[in-house]
Order: sequence, then C-alpha cells, then structure tokens
Amino acid sequence: MDLKIVKIDPPKDCNTILGTARFIKTAEDLYEALVNSVPNIQFGLGFCESSGPCLVRHEGNDTKLRQLAAEKAFEIGCGHSFLIFLKNAYPLNVLDKIKNVPEVCTVHAATANPLEVIIAETSQGRGILGVVDGSKSKGIETDKDIAERRQFLQKIGYKLG
Amino acid sequence: MDLKIVKIDPPKDCNTILGTARFIKTAEDLYEALVNSVPNIQFGLGFCESSGPCLVRHEGNDTKLRQLAAEKAFEIGCGHSFLIFLKNAYPLNVLDKIKNVPEVCTVHAATANPLEVIIAETSQGRGILGVVDGSKSKGIETDKDIAERRQFLQKIGYKLG
Amino acid sequence: MDLKIVKIDPPKDCNTILGTARFIKTAEDLYEALVNSVPNIQFGLGFCESSGPCLVRHEGNDTKLRQLAAEKAFEIGCGHSFLIFLKNAYPLNVLDKIKNVPEVCTVHAATANPLEVIIAETSQGRGILGVVDGSKSKGIETDKDIAERRQFLQKIGYKLG
Amino acid sequence: MDLKIVKIDPPKDCNTILGTARFIKTAEDLYEALVNSVPNIQFGLGFCESSGPCLVRHEGNDTKLRQLAAEKAFEIGCGHSFLIFLKNAYPLNVLDKIKNVPEVCTVHAATANPLEVIIAETSQGRGILGVVDGSKSKGIETDKDIAERRQFLQKIGYKLG
Amino acid sequence: MDLKIVKIDPPKDCNTILGTARFIKTAEDLYEALVNSVPNIQFGLGFCESSGPCLVRHEGNDTKLRQLAAEKAFEIGCGHSFLIFLKNAYPLNVLDKIKNVPEVCTVHAATANPLEVIIAETSQGRGILGVVDGSKSKGIETDKDIAERRQFLQKIGYKLG
Amino acid sequence: MDLKIVKIDPPKDCNTILGTARFIKTAEDLYEALVNSVPNIQFGLGFCESSGPCLVRHEGNDTKLRQLAAEKAFEIGCGHSFLIFLKNAYPLNVLDKIKNVPEVCTVHAATANPLEVIIAETSQGRGILGVVDGSKSKGIETDKDIAERRQFLQKIGYKLG
Repeated sequence: MDLKIVKIDPPKDCNTILGTARFIKTAEDLYEALVNSVPNIQFGLGFCESSGPCLVRHEGNDTKLRQLAAEKAFEIGCGHSFLIFLKNAYPLNVLDKIKNVPEVCTVHAATANPLEVIIAETSQGRGILGVVDGSKSKGIETDKDIAERRQFLQKIGYKLG
Repeated sequence: MDLKIVKIDPPKDCNTILGTARFIKTAEDLYEALVNSVPNIQFGLGFCESSGPCLVRHEGNDTKLRQLAAEKAFEIGCGHSFLIFLKNAYPLNVLDKIKNVPEVCTVHAATANPLEVIIAETSQGRGILGVVDGSKSKGIETDKDIAERRQFLQKIGYKLG
Repeated sequence: MDLKIVKIDPPKDCNTILGTARFIKTAEDLYEALVNSVPNIQFGLGFCESSGPCLVRHEGNDTKLRQLAAEKAFEIGCGHSFLIFLKNAYPLNVLDKIKNVPEVCTVHAATANPLEVIIAETSQGRGILGVVDGSKSKGIETDKDIAERRQFLQKIGYKLG
Repeated sequence: MDLKIVKIDPPKDCNTILGTARFIKTAEDLYEALVNSVPNIQFGLGFCESSGPCLVRHEGNDTKLRQLAAEKAFEIGCGHSFLIFLKNAYPLNVLDKIKNVPEVCTVHAATANPLEVIIAETSQGRGILGVVDGSKSKGIETDKDIAERRQFLQKIGYKLG
Repeated sequence: MDLKIVKIDPPKDCNTILGTARFIKTAEDLYEALVNSVPNIQFGLGFCESSGPCLVRHEGNDTKLRQLAAEKAFEIGCGHSFLIFLKNAYPLNVLDKIKNVPEVCTVHAATANPLEVIIAETSQGRGILGVVDGSKSKGIETDKDIAERRQFLQKIGYKLG
Repeated sequence: MDLKIVKIDPPKDCNTILGTARFIKTAEDLYEALVNSVPNIQFGLGFCESSGPCLVRHEGNDTKLRQLAAEKAFEIGCGHSFLIFLKNAYPLNVLDKIKNVPEVCTVHAATANPLEVIIAETSQGRGILGVVDGSKSKGIETDKDIAERRQFLQKIGYKLG
C-alpha cells in the first residue's frame, strides 16, 4: 500500500468540498442540490465512477470550474469520491443540501484553504484516508479573542448581539 | 501502529454499507431503519461493540446475510464500526435513513464494488482509516459519455427528459 | 508525512464527540445545537481554526470541560476539527443536532471509550485519518447474548417488549 | 367563503399522500424523490400550479395512477397542493424523502383510508383546511390490545422482540 | 359538517405536542424518538388509529401522563392524529426527532399554553383544521423589548452575547 | 368561533413564508437560518408570541421588510405563527433550513402569490386554519405543456437535459 498526497488549491474566490458518494447519478444529484442552494451560485464538480469505464463524471454551470473540478477529481482518482469547486456561495449555504443527497456517504472537507488529500493506493485502486485542511493550530484563544470573534460574527450579520 | 487491509466482496446481488456509530442499541436501530426503507428488503448487519464483552452485535431478516455480515464485521473488528449487506434495495433507497439513525456518526462506503478497508491497529484496538471502493479512475468523460450517462438515467427512470 | 496518535480519555462521566467542520462560526453553532438538545447538559468544545491566527476557538457552559476540550483540541491541532466533552447527555441525544449544524462535515467518533486519534502531519499542517474507539472485537454474540441485549434495551426503557 | 369536501378513495392497493409545496419544479422533484425510495414503486402525482396558466402538473411511472392523481388534484384545485397515489411502497418508506423535497411545505395526510379533504373557497381561489382521514376513534386500547399490537409489529418484522 | 373545539390544558409543568401521522407503528416510533431525546424525559402519548378497531394507541414512560394523553387523544378522536404530554424536556429538545419519525406528516402545535383544537366532524369521521395556541397578539415589540428579549436568551444560556 | 381572512400581498420581488413554531427564541433562530441560506438574502420576519406580553417579535436584515413582516404578523395575530418576507432568495433555497429550525412545527405556505390566511378566532385567541395560495386550478396539463415545463426547468438551469 502506497501513501500519496494530492494538493488542492481552490480556484480564486472558490471553496472546495470533498466527499464520498455512490453511483453515477450522484453527478446529477449534486448538480441539482447546488442549483437549489443559492440563486447565482457558480460551480463545477467531478465524481469518480469506480466500476465499468471508471470515468470522472462531471457537471456544473461554470465551464472553467467544471473543467478544473474534473481534472482534480481525476488526479485524486479515489473510487466514489467527489470534488466541488463553488463560487458566489459558501459551504454553510450548501452543506446541508449536499449531505442530504441520497447517495452521499460523507463529506471530508469544505474549505477555502489549501487542502492536502491523503490517499492510499493498492493494486485494486485508491481511497481517501484523510485531509490536511489549512494550517496547524497555533494557540488557544484568549478572552479578548473570544470577544472579538463574537463581535465579528455579529458585525457580518451571522449572529445577533 | 500496524496497517491492515480487510477485503470485502459483497455477497451475490448485494450492496455493502460500512459506517461508524455508537452504542449497542445501534444494531436494533439500524434494523428498524432498514425495514422502514423498502418493503421486501433483505439484509444482515454486524456492529462492533467496543467496551465490556466487545462482541459483534448482529441483526437482520436474512439468516445468511446476517451471518456473513457478523463474520466480516468481526474480521474488521474496529470499535463502533458497522457493516450491512443488503439485497432487493439499493444504497440510495436507504442511506438517508441510515444517516438519520441517532447513533450513526458517519458512513464510509455504500457500494456493490469489492471494497478494501484500510485499518490501523494499535495496542488498544483498531480503527478504520479509509476504504478503497472499486477501481481507480481511468479518464474523464467526454461529451458523448455525458449524453449517454444522462440518457441512461432517464431510460432507467431516475430522471425525466 | 508523519503519523501521530493523540490519546483522549474522556473526563469523568463524559462522552467525547470528535468531528470536522468549517469556519469559526462553528464554535457558536455547536454551542447552540448542544444547548438545544438536553435541558441540563454540561459541555465544553474546541474548534481548530485553520487559517489566519489558527487559534483553537472554544465555547461551553462548564468551565472545566471547556478548558479540557480546548486543550485537547489544541493537542489534536488538525485544521477544522472539533472536539466536544459532554455530561448529563448521551451522544444519541445530540448527534442529530450536531450533524445538522450547517458547517459540520462529518463526525469521526462519539464515545465514552478511551479514544486514539490517528493524525497525519505534513509540512502544511495536520489531518485526522481515523480513530481507535475502545477495544478490538473479541467474538460474535450468541443467541443468548442477543436475548440479553434486547432485554437490556427494554429494561432501561429504550425499546418496548 | 364556502366550505367544500372532496372525497378521495385511494385506488386499489394504493396509499394517498396529500401535501402542500411550491413551484412547478415540485412535480419533477417529487417524481425523483419517489423513484429514489423503493426499487419497484409505482405512482402518479398531480401538483396544482397556482399562477399563470394554473394547470395541474403531473408526473409518474404508472399511466393509470398518474391520470387518476391528476384528475383528483384538479378536483381539489387548491393552489400549491399536491396529491400522490402510490403502490408497491408504503408511506413510511417515502415520507422522509417527500418531506425533504426542497419545495415541500407540509404533508396533510398519508393514508390507505378514504379521505375527505376540507376546502375553503373564496373569490381568489381554494385552500386545504384539513382532512378527515378514516374513521373516528371508538375507544382506548386495553393492556390486551397493547400486547397484541406490539406482537403484531414484531410478527411482521417492523420491531424486534 | 360540524365544527367542534377540544380544549387542552397541559398537565402541570408539561408541554403539549399535537400532530398527524400514519399507522399504529407510530405509537412505538414516537416512544423511541422521545426516549432518544433527553435522558430523564417523562411523557405519555396517544395515537388515533383510524381503521379497523379505531382504538387510541398509547405509550409512555409516565403512567399518569400516558393516561391523560390517551384520554385527551380520544376526546380529539381525529384519524391519525397524535398527542404528547412531556415533562423534563422542552419541545425544542424533541421536535426534530418527532418530525423525523418516518410516519409523521405534520406537527400542528408544540406549546405550554392552553390549546384549542378546532375539529371538523363529518359522517365519516373527524379532522383537525387548526389550533388556537395561547392568546392573540397584543402589540409589536419595541427596541427596548428587543434588547430585553435578546438579553433574556443570553441570560438563560440559549445564545452567546 | 368567527372565521376571518387576512390578505397578504408580498412586497415587490419578495416571497412570503408562513408557518407555526414555538417560543420567542424562534425569532433569532429563523434569523440565523435565513442568513445561513443565501449570501445576499434580504428579509424581515415576525413571530407571534402567545403568552405573557404577547408581542410580535421581529428580526431581519432589511428595515422595510422587517417592519412589513411585523405589521402583517400582528394583523394575523395567531399564537406561535411566523411570517417571513424574503428577497434575493427563493423559498426552495431556504425551506429546508426553516423546516430544520428546532422550534418550527409546520410551514403553511411559501409563495410569491397573493395569499389569503383563513383564521379562526375564539374568545381565547386565534389560529390559522389554512391558506388560499394564488388561484384555483384551471385545467390539467397536456403532453405539450409537459414538454414545455420540462424544457423550461432545463433552460433556467434547475434540471439537466
């Protein structure tokens, strides 16, 4: 068994969502879940079919993001994994809809950070073991940090004061 | 820490679902979720209790699938993991009900493919790191593949044209 | 890539929930999900911010559990992971609410067992590969074990006879 | 305001589901939710569009049930209501998928009983006030009835003993 | 068609949940959903079977609440309706679990207020049209009321400041 | 018991969502659910508290919509009902998040149509019986209508062809 790392830098102004699903219908179902989420969302997605022709199935409403997602999904190449690049929407707008897609098993990451996907390769195929999402923790927030964090969430309108 | 691989070939006409949950009640709750999903579903499931007697708890409505799921769950042996073999139903019929079981943490795979479960073993016990589900991606679908995929989903009734 | 293990022994009478989410709002959203679950729940939680200051963000309604969760989350240090210690409530009371938090990607474990978190460390950061939750399976339950398990669940009121 | 009653007798071996949704996409989304639920489900559905042409939109994979559902939905005629007749599947197999359709507001009834839909009609249009689902209660179950009910659910495999 | 009102005063320290479901298994499934919600919840519930013997089916873990819920459900007598009285738990602890029970169609009310259930009775049976939950609105909150409301929610721990 | 009708014309470019919930925390929780849904959503909401001061509680991120929603909720005046006016977002973007708010019981309507809310008033208070959402059905769609409907959904990007 070999361990490999695939690095993902999300395209400009994009977030990345990486997960595991089942069945080629996933590509259409993820497409529908995403267009249901935010009126002007732009995205591309790739899904690694893992039997028969084993093609990366792809959909999207943005040509460039679709191509990038398909290519990066191919580089990952892990059976039944999917990769989404999305713009004009944040993961917290869409994650519940993604998790509710009937074929989706799990979501490994949803992030604007650089991502390292840790992959095991055997003679049969490849599987995702985990992800390194952004940087390692540098410390524990202080009371001042807590107050600033809460005020920030109120200032950008996510929470009421 | 040792790395091990357990291979799972789903029984004939079956799909495999592998996940992580919590508490021996999971065995009954997964049973109920599955009988709620499809009228004539047949299945067996094993759940790895991870404290006290550490037994593989098992349920099902098909004797053979129940025995096979219990034995394979024992071979996996990872604390709080569960394994389901199901027939007369597809993962997309049941996955939402599985994910909603109150003790279920995550689903690692739902597949008709041969599966390799990558396991870490320490002096304390065992844990699932990831799965190799079917084969590695061989290419990216072309416009012709896309058209055929969409038509296929319409032909088998999953999507409208 | 280095592999490391962080051991978690839940504080007395506590359960541990370990998962992956996204965005510092997660700390407040997990707080709200938990106070919505059980009237007298006590808990502390830490969330590993993975960009900018990369601080462990923490919330809770029990000072000691909050401090312990923040410190242990810092020891884990994996980008976008979260750790909860909870008391007066069981995972099956809260897991659905946790899974529905809009930023939550997955839940790796929910357990009262000692837990080993298997972590990959690269030059970029750290990621969770899996967990060893309690002990390895020791056998498969017999008909007598099954009967006792079902009666136990009825006796403690989880199931009707 | 006039009060009217529309009577629904489900077609042979069918269940009826009556609800309220939003937007003509509902017809396709309900179709997809139902084909995702049970492999050999047969159904027809009608949805009352309530602006523009105000047509009953209909889908299904059984010609007769589709026609019956469209005609009965037209007789109901309440803006944004939908009606499903389904066979080879029970409401408990499909209701969660129906409730999760993004446009669905509520489900008024899911039943094999004769149903009376109580409707208010104004000069603007019509709305569902409530339903009479089957017959009025005749008594409170005794300890003997309780025991028989629990045994019945175990006998048909829904619950474990 | 006659209109009737059934008044419900929740027992001391209790909340009332009134809804519509399907099938006698609902009684056991609601029981399980409630025991999964809060460790020391106490409750009784009645469900109006609406075909065959048309009995009020009842479950619970508190004898008195179970009897009261069964009697009040019988007074309501609307096919497929259910009534829950619960103590040591609030509706916001349990409503998601109730809504996720596979047979539940809708929830009409969840309240500690006196409730009036407005019922239509025909020669076939009875149906819930709506509820009067507590009192009519007396005004619109001012800026001072808003500030006090937000502070109150923070003071009792539901929101962070 | 008196029957009354409150008419709602959604403000320009807005949709209306009308539902029933529980507890004054609903106002903040609905606010959070809505800001989580679509990045630039604009909305106002009113919630009819039904005990104590019985005030219409209101939140929002658009001053005008907030005022309009509070005033219209006051005119409705039904205990525990809520009313949302939203812009830059459609009901299908937000309804799942609304339905998942822990205090929400049901959603009566989500629409851009003129809405008539049918209300029962007793000496105790007021309750919603139903809604007339837009216009009455005028016919059943033909094969030509079906083809146009499906093409329309594909053209605006909701479905793939």
